Amino acid sequence: MTTSANSYIIGVDLGGTNIVVGAMSADGVRQYAMHSTPTPPRSEGSSERVVERMIEMVEVTIAETLKETGAKRGDILGVGIGAPGPLDRENGVVIIAPNLGWHNLPLRSLISDAVQLPCTLDNDANCATYGEWWVGAARGARNVVGITIGTGIGGGLIIDGKLYHGSSDVAGEIGHMTIDQTGRRCGCGNYGCLEAYASGPNIAERAREALRSGDISVLPSMVGGDLERISAATVYEAAHKGDVVAREVVRDTAKFLGVGLANLLNVFNPDVVVVAGGVTQAGDALFEPLRAEVRRRAFKPAVAACRIVPGELPGTAGVIGAVGTFRSQMIS
Amino acid sequence: MTTSANSYIIGVDLGGTNIVVGAMSADGVRQYAMHSTPTPPRSEGSSERVVERMIEMVEVTIAETLKETGAKRGDILGVGIGAPGPLDRENGVVIIAPNLGWHNLPLRSLISDAVQLPCTLDNDANCATYGEWWVGAARGARNVVGITIGTGIGGGLIIDGKLYHGSSDVAGEIGHMTIDQTGRRCGCGNYGCLEAYASGPNIAERAREALRSGDISVLPSMVGGDLERISAATVYEAAHKGDVVAREVVRDTAKFLGVGLANLLNVFNPDVVVVAGGVTQAGDALFEPLRAEVRRRAFKPAVAACRIVPGELPGTAGVIGAVGTFRSQMIS
Repeated sequence: MTTSANSYIIGVDLGGTNIVVGAMSADGVRQYAMHSTPTPPRSEGSSERVVERMIEMVEVTIAETLKETGAKRGDILGVGIGAPGPLDRENGVVIIAPNLGWHNLPLRSLISDAVQLPCTLDNDANCATYGEWWVGAARGARNVVGITIGTGIGGGLIIDGKLYHGSSDVAGEIGHMTIDQTGRRCGCGNYGCLEAYASGPNIAERAREALRSGDISVLPSMVGGDLERISAATVYEAAHKGDVVAREVVRDTAKFLGVGLANLLNVFNPDVVVVAGGVTQAGDALFEPLRAEVRRRAFKPAVAACRIVPGELPGTAGVIGAVGTFRSQMIS
Repeated sequence: MTTSANSYIIGVDLGGTNIVVGAMSADGVRQYAMHSTPTPPRSEGSSERVVERMIEMVEVTIAETLKETGAKRGDILGVGIGAPGPLDRENGVVIIAPNLGWHNLPLRSLISDAVQLPCTLDNDANCATYGEWWVGAARGARNVVGITIGTGIGGGLIIDGKLYHGSSDVAGEIGHMTIDQTGRRCGCGNYGCLEAYASGPNIAERAREALRSGDISVLPSMVGGDLERISAATVYEAAHKGDVVAREVVRDTAKFLGVGLANLLNVFNPDVVVVAGGVTQAGDALFEPLRAEVRRRAFKPAVAACRIVPGELPGTAGVIGAVGTFRSQMIS
């Protein structure tokens, strides 16, 4: 497959909360028709509804892109899909996606058959990392660690300018690195995973723990006294207001992430680490202690070689990276 | 540079305890003249003495190889050197080697000038990993983690069949992955590194701690009552005899290593992990609980893709890998 001056690729980023779809010119320069829709909630028959919703969004994106650019259907080269893993890339199958209730769903062929275009499937966090490397905060880097902090913690690795998948497409599960072998229980069943400390829900949970122990804070008043409504975003907002409990939670988050990233610096020695997801809303209050913790823990030549930066493509890195991974797999 | 049917490469493995030197046919099939000598102890002027000793050993190895094979000096293609890092491969400089007291030593040119042969320099643990991949326990694998447990814990990564060095030659410092963020102090200054639990000296130290707390064991009698003389080897021997304290120390070692290796399976998803060094003397008493801990902690598709095996080249993996890294860098 080759590109022409007027060819386009569709990107799909399937998340547990939202489905984001958009188009890009095949050279990665222009974006078109970026849409976001809530992911249909998990229930009986929901896998069909999620797939139908994705197909509808792809068709709408194609129609809008053709209208906007004057291109023809034949100028659409295909669809890159990013989805939660673990997945089997070669066969285009999502093996397990707990938040969606999926087991062994042949997502790639379901989409491809419906829209009659070639499709590729890759892990959502891999796509987000690829997007930041292709046109975002890690442009031009050789070795990149991407970490995306949301409901879970996902990660991706670029090695020598290529997405690294490992021996069974599992590589990059940064959130499930143990940083405290006897530590907090993680959703994966393990103890002391980075995700058990620094994912969005766990950031909120650590704030609730501090409040339950009697610390005084503006947080309860921000959620009408219902502590269960505290989210990571509430914590960042309170920290910006100078709330002591929230600032402590953010500082601890930075330390936990710093331990995890120091491990990755010592083992992978990247030139860029891109931190993406809601956690970047915390800004310097997060990034300064995070970089300090990494400096304390990682080897000096690894620290000297590495920039730790926030993502530059909030909300769209996954779509852009899905386009990029399609392009790198399908276009010569 | 090209090889002929009768060409040879010298390998040097510089360790804190021993210098090992040998020759191999350039195709990696035959080994010649493998020698080991204690590394001259650290003291005033010791860097010169260590380098002189290495040069002598290279010359002796060359002479013996020529005699044994009937080859000529011109059939010796060069010398691959493995040395403790961090180092600057491009310039052939050892940046810091604490056990040797070296700072910014241009080791490659010192050896090359003396023996009048092209030399390459790489990290010792990288060389050992490369050796196991080239002709040892990880033969034919695509993605490999090598972990060598001795005075420290070193590591190397093979990615898509190539040694991976990272952005500043630091990659593979597996021993300095934090597995317990508030844990034991490590020699590197950090807390909770894998090395602080599972290196040879720390295995011995954990045995001493158990004895000091009053546990009954054959260990004191094995060292004439002088607990400071307990080494990791003493612990393995006592464990083989069925000593309860020693077996507990080995089981704990397996758990710590299991946590570290599970992290690497989740992040790096290799097809083989090679565990080398003295710790392999503990045999199944180590490997069985180690594999069980990895199964508990790592993602199923990562566990399913990966064999965890002892090294097959005890004492020579570093020399063989030094030859292999010379070959991969210098021979087209």
